[in-house]
Amino acid sequence: MDKQDSSEAPAAESPAGADAFSPIAWRDGGLWLLDQTLLPAEEEWIDCSTPEIIADAIRRLAVRGAPAIGVSAAYGLVVGLRDVERAEDLGSRFEEVYELLASTRPTAVNLRWALDYGRRVFEEHRAGGPEATRAALLEWAKGVHADDIDSCRRMGEHAVELFREGDKVLTHCNAGALATGGYGTAVGVITSCFHHGRLAQVWVDETRPLLQGARLTAWELSRLNIPYRVVTDSSVGALMSRDMVDRVVVGSDRIAANGDVANKIGTYTVAVLAARHGVPFYVAAPLSTIDLHTATGDDIPIEIRDPEEVTRIAGVDMSPNTEMAQNFAFDVTPNDLVAAIITEVGVLRAPYVESIREAFAQAEAG
Amino acid sequence: MDKQDSSEAPAAESPAGADAFSPIAWRDGGLWLLDQTLLPAEEEWIDCSTPEIIADAIRRLAVRGAPAIGVSAAYGLVVGLRDVERAEDLGSRFEEVYELLASTRPTAVNLRWALDYGRRVFEEHRAGGPEATRAALLEWAKGVHADDIDSCRRMGEHAVELFREGDKVLTHCNAGALATGGYGTAVGVITSCFHHGRLAQVWVDETRPLLQGARLTAWELSRLNIPYRVVTDSSVGALMSRDMVDRVVVGSDRIAANGDVANKIGTYTVAVLAARHGVPFYVAAPLSTIDLHTATGDDIPIEIRDPEEVTRIAGVDMSPNTEMAQNFAFDVTPNDLVAAIITEVGVLRAPYVESIREAFAQAEAG
Repeated sequence: MDKQDSSEAPAAESPAGADAFSPIAWRDGGLWLLDQTLLPAEEEWIDCSTPEIIADAIRRLAVRGAPAIGVSAAYGLVVGLRDVERAEDLGSRFEEVYELLASTRPTAVNLRWALDYGRRVFEEHRAGGPEATRAALLEWAKGVHADDIDSCRRMGEHAVELFREGDKVLTHCNAGALATGGYGTAVGVITSCFHHGRLAQVWVDETRPLLQGARLTAWELSRLNIPYRVVTDSSVGALMSRDMVDRVVVGSDRIAANGDVANKIGTYTVAVLAARHGVPFYVAAPLSTIDLHTATGDDIPIEIRDPEEVTRIAGVDMSPNTEMAQNFAFDVTPNDLVAAIITEVGVLRAPYVESIREAFAQAEAG
Repeated sequence: MDKQDSSEAPAAESPAGADAFSPIAWRDGGLWLLDQTLLPAEEEWIDCSTPEIIADAIRRLAVRGAPAIGVSAAYGLVVGLRDVERAEDLGSRFEEVYELLASTRPTAVNLRWALDYGRRVFEEHRAGGPEATRAALLEWAKGVHADDIDSCRRMGEHAVELFREGDKVLTHCNAGALATGGYGTAVGVITSCFHHGRLAQVWVDETRPLLQGARLTAWELSRLNIPYRVVTDSSVGALMSRDMVDRVVVGSDRIAANGDVANKIGTYTVAVLAARHGVPFYVAAPLSTIDLHTATGDDIPIEIRDPEEVTRIAGVDMSPNTEMAQNFAFDVTPNDLVAAIITEVGVLRAPYVESIREAFAQAEAG
């Protein structure tokens, strides 16, 4: 696996535009992913020359965040078909790559969304042979990438009405440029509101066990010159009881058809505290994160990860037995705790079964 | 500062008894404290030959937990008077040592409690000269130490009625033998209930930023052979929403006269989640933790510690700017979220203003 440092970072060629950042880049006919496990200490890009490298990057969270996983998987289908020479091998190879990528992580629905969307593009073009299929999939993947960034920017615009001058906003995990095609969902909302003068400071939950808040969101906010402070996840109650939080905005890995929200472990806790303290709790997510086939949060599969992610930090064993931990990667926030879902087609309110259905209808019509 | 490893650990000579552990020992005419910053990797004891070493140990959390700080400060008064030769120097030296120890940490009330109690003993005996004063203070300090362990054992007995066979109990931070003279408050309750067959498993919040749960409570429960699993602090909501927690028991650094509870940051969050899920939230603390001079939780001073405790873990910078963090050490849980306070004189229930007053009356009468 080749790596290169940030001096040759391919980000500028991403479709995120000059003022935004993308952790995903197609360059010199290949996919490059920023290795997020190394941030903020190092900015290294992974040369994803095989779908196995992409699958590995998704599994070990070198690329993470539901939208970013979706975009990476889209490009992954192109990379996976790279060496196919004969038309009759296309179908079996496609299935192989589809399964490899689909098996990486269970909770984020954008992964399946991208792969199923890719399958339709594949079926439409495979008759043209390997070269034409690859070209069509690449064009499509670039479109998925660009659309994702565009969705984030729209969310940012729609969100402005929800915020007020001087607001202190808390976010959990990283739902930023790094978690998307670029710009970010929750961090995109924060960026937009900050530039509209509606936001004074961000509270960044560190987000144990992998510290996506302390490592990644803080890194992004630093680059964006948006004032922030990192806090331990367990500080949210103290902050709210001191009236130090005005709004919460988070991303999501999957939203059920009724508006229940799966997101990084700890999100539910923040939502419960927000409800107790009358702090509006917003979720920013593209429609590709909403799964109409998942009726409620109870139906969302929750990934359980290695206990050592909890007990071993920076290579040091923090607990006497590193196996004696329980590591749920996500939790589910019931829809009654969600003040609004900010999507690319607008701000959705309860009852979500209806507002979500209308949003999809609007998106298809548009 | 001399240290020695566990092969010569003086724990067996502590008044905790053969079946219990104490992090504080008086041996060979001197005070020894187990350095809790090094656990679980190393068991090193600090030779506390001066009150400055004791103050430093308290400040950097080598000894921590309100009752353990109180016991350490009691012995600290003896150590502080060690070199006084002339009776006329006793008073000024006592004030010097009192101020040094009192200034170490603001939230735990047991510290002031022990020092003020020590002052009364000092005043009673100083007329007898340095030698007699030291002897009286040492006898008193050993009594404070023994009483603290005895209180913990009583709490454990009183708590049994509150638990049921098969209960899964969650605790936050470390309120164990390490946080007390020995045996522990919340962990003492857990130990007692486990041995009475009322407890099946413990959920241990890791307790960021300093991981007292993952490092210390896990270490104690391992030694006690009580089944446990460590979880990130942000997992509590997910566990409760899956009905995986039946009881919560925590310690406290200060309880106001109305029953508001200051404890390690994150405790309030656990209490809010427990209330939402109908899980009884118990606080185990000796009467020396209850401050009748503090009317409500609003009056409890909350220590703010170094931001780098949050952003630097195991010597590694986890965030792009290690100063950009907010680090409240404690939070306050309002009394309406507290199902019961377990003390050495019995289980107190709301309204706490009354039950606390009665408990003190009972203790004085007894």
